[in-house]
Amino acid sequence: MNQSAIYLDHNATTMLNPAVLEQMLPFLRQPQGNPTSRHGFGRHARTAIERAREQVADAVNAHPSQVIFTSGGTEANNLAMTGVASAFGPGRMIISAIEHPCISRPARAMQQRGHDLKILGVDHHGKVNPEQLNQLLSEDTSIVSVMLANNETGVIQDIAQLAETARKYGACMHTDAVQALGKIPVDFTALNVHAMTLSSHKIHGPQGAGALILDKRVDIQPVLYGGGQERGLRSGTENIAAIVGFGAACEQLQSSVLQSAERIRQMRNQLESGLSKLGAVIFGYGFSTGIKNPARLPNTSFFAFNEIEGETLVMAMDRKGFSVASGSACSSDSTEPSQVLLAMGVEPDMARGAVRVSLGAENSMAEIDAFLQTLESELLRLRQLTAVAV
Amino acid sequence: MNQSAIYLDHNATTMLNPAVLEQMLPFLRQPQGNPTSRHGFGRHARTAIERAREQVADAVNAHPSQVIFTSGGTEANNLAMTGVASAFGPGRMIISAIEHPCISRPARAMQQRGHDLKILGVDHHGKVNPEQLNQLLSEDTSIVSVMLANNETGVIQDIAQLAETARKYGACMHTDAVQALGKIPVDFTALNVHAMTLSSHKIHGPQGAGALILDKRVDIQPVLYGGGQERGLRSGTENIAAIVGFGAACEQLQSSVLQSAERIRQMRNQLESGLSKLGAVIFGYGFSTGIKNPARLPNTSFFAFNEIEGETLVMAMDRKGFSVASGSACSSDSTEPSQVLLAMGVEPDMARGAVRVSLGAENSMAEIDAFLQTLESELLRLRQLTAVAV
Repeated sequence: MNQSAIYLDHNATTMLNPAVLEQMLPFLRQPQGNPTSRHGFGRHARTAIERAREQVADAVNAHPSQVIFTSGGTEANNLAMTGVASAFGPGRMIISAIEHPCISRPARAMQQRGHDLKILGVDHHGKVNPEQLNQLLSEDTSIVSVMLANNETGVIQDIAQLAETARKYGACMHTDAVQALGKIPVDFTALNVHAMTLSSHKIHGPQGAGALILDKRVDIQPVLYGGGQERGLRSGTENIAAIVGFGAACEQLQSSVLQSAERIRQMRNQLESGLSKLGAVIFGYGFSTGIKNPARLPNTSFFAFNEIEGETLVMAMDRKGFSVASGSACSSDSTEPSQVLLAMGVEPDMARGAVRVSLGAENSMAEIDAFLQTLESELLRLRQLTAVAV
Repeated sequence: MNQSAIYLDHNATTMLNPAVLEQMLPFLRQPQGNPTSRHGFGRHARTAIERAREQVADAVNAHPSQVIFTSGGTEANNLAMTGVASAFGPGRMIISAIEHPCISRPARAMQQRGHDLKILGVDHHGKVNPEQLNQLLSEDTSIVSVMLANNETGVIQDIAQLAETARKYGACMHTDAVQALGKIPVDFTALNVHAMTLSSHKIHGPQGAGALILDKRVDIQPVLYGGGQERGLRSGTENIAAIVGFGAACEQLQSSVLQSAERIRQMRNQLESGLSKLGAVIFGYGFSTGIKNPARLPNTSFFAFNEIEGETLVMAMDRKGFSVASGSACSSDSTEPSQVLLAMGVEPDMARGAVRVSLGAENSMAEIDAFLQTLESELLRLRQLTAVAV
């Protein structure tokens, strides 16, 4: 691997913060007990987990008792969808058309088990219409799930408003806040949701930890059964080091990550200004202007160039030392056009061109300039190849 | 925590091997991509995971393509039970009476969804009767699950024989080998099972990784849906460092852990000889003599003293610097008598006295002697307290 490559794919995963690793190392180097064990080793592990629970809760204005640790965001989203719908019994489930597959696929699985799944569309900006949610809601709706910020476009939804609508029908309101955490302030209480998903490795914490923040009044069934850890909602020996790291990463959010947001936004604006000059279509761009009340994450640009395959451009830029994504890196080896863009009404040919740049605090303005310069020459080269081929 | 305490609870969790941590550290210290990403960072992570897959497969004589990484043993057991039964549809499920809760509880959950659950009893040694399995099997049996070695007693089952019986009825044979791995040789092919569960943190690997070894012909549904990682059977961004550590721990098995087994067995025999002199009842003891064809794990002693609560004894020994378990540490804050012992026909009063010592390579004969000496004085003290109370 080219270790000197410039990493511009922070929505896929982030580098583990060395300060976070320092806090994890004692739990990897020194003897640890099973947190369920009653002896000293076990109690020591239990104490570390409870401290991390407080750190995670503090980061999103929740109560520690509302934090259910999972192995990551995917598991937390599955727990919300499958767990709430199973406890409710066959009824309606409502998700937006731009949810991550770890929301939409468990929802489809529940549909096959007799649940009634409705999809909430988005406009060409990628925004959900609260009025449509009102129309789709029914008295037998178990759960509504709309992500706080989209992983591909970065578009932010008005979750508090959607939650108010969902609550009128007694539905459980869930939001996947995995991409929002660390990039914009995330407040469980202010969002007025019943359940919210977080992931550690998207905020410079370790892989292997996530959480479902859950209002304890919500009726929910486990997905993973066993020893009864996490109030019976997530069995399995706790991954102590990862949980400790997740807590530490949450604590860092207050002091460092969110402070970088303005600098990251400036880099992103510089990037998009350059992209526009090169003729890119930037998805959800109309939303990028507001600073105080942003409608897109400050770090994300999702764009395409006419007649250039996104996949081809990603590979070309990789060879030049820039790590970017085509569509969502999380949806595995698929070369289907982005479902998010199709839901926004983007033509499939244009959607196939989509490339995502997602910035982090490690990036610099010089890297943005270098990226734009390389992009310009690669576009020229690729267009010449296409011209020859035609 | 008393860091100098003597740890005798290796069936609950084991210390991370420093050599394994060394192999993990580059994946915690250096930038890593999401293994699903196509750029260099992503491909580097993917390569590391595929190497670990080979190491895990090699440790149990399986093919790398049969290894499905999960967040741990609990998740792998849930995937086997729920995944196979869901794919089969309503039918019979058979588990033994001494399975870990992460087998029995998902089985109960499937029972509530219309599956027919049958429990295979054990004799007073803790052994399953293959003839009873034959009687319980039906043409509509989806899955049979019997653990290779029990976490509490260490009793080992004749899985290959049970598998042969299950195969006659076309049922999927699964074994939970979490407690066996690293203590006795575990051979997926020789055991003749369709599916087998492994866990990293029980073999001096990190927490947060496990695997379901799965014959690819088995029809199975995912439990966690999303990005489609692990052949679609386990979605979620891979915990690279933990998977790398799991692979390294598996590689260590060949060179070091299994070599310690004979020394550990000698310590265990010394322990049990001392326990007998102190008047302990040792569960499954009749099985402890064979060396070439052991019927119990070499590291595990599960015992009780008349009229001494196991919980009380564990607390007393903890204060004296010895970390042992009462019943199964994995079954959380329960003070119910061990279900394993009840299934073996042990009286509830005697079962409540159960204490488990599970040894590891770090332990020494001197520690065994110290344990026995302290145990003798604590028993005396506790019996005097009881006498006064009466």
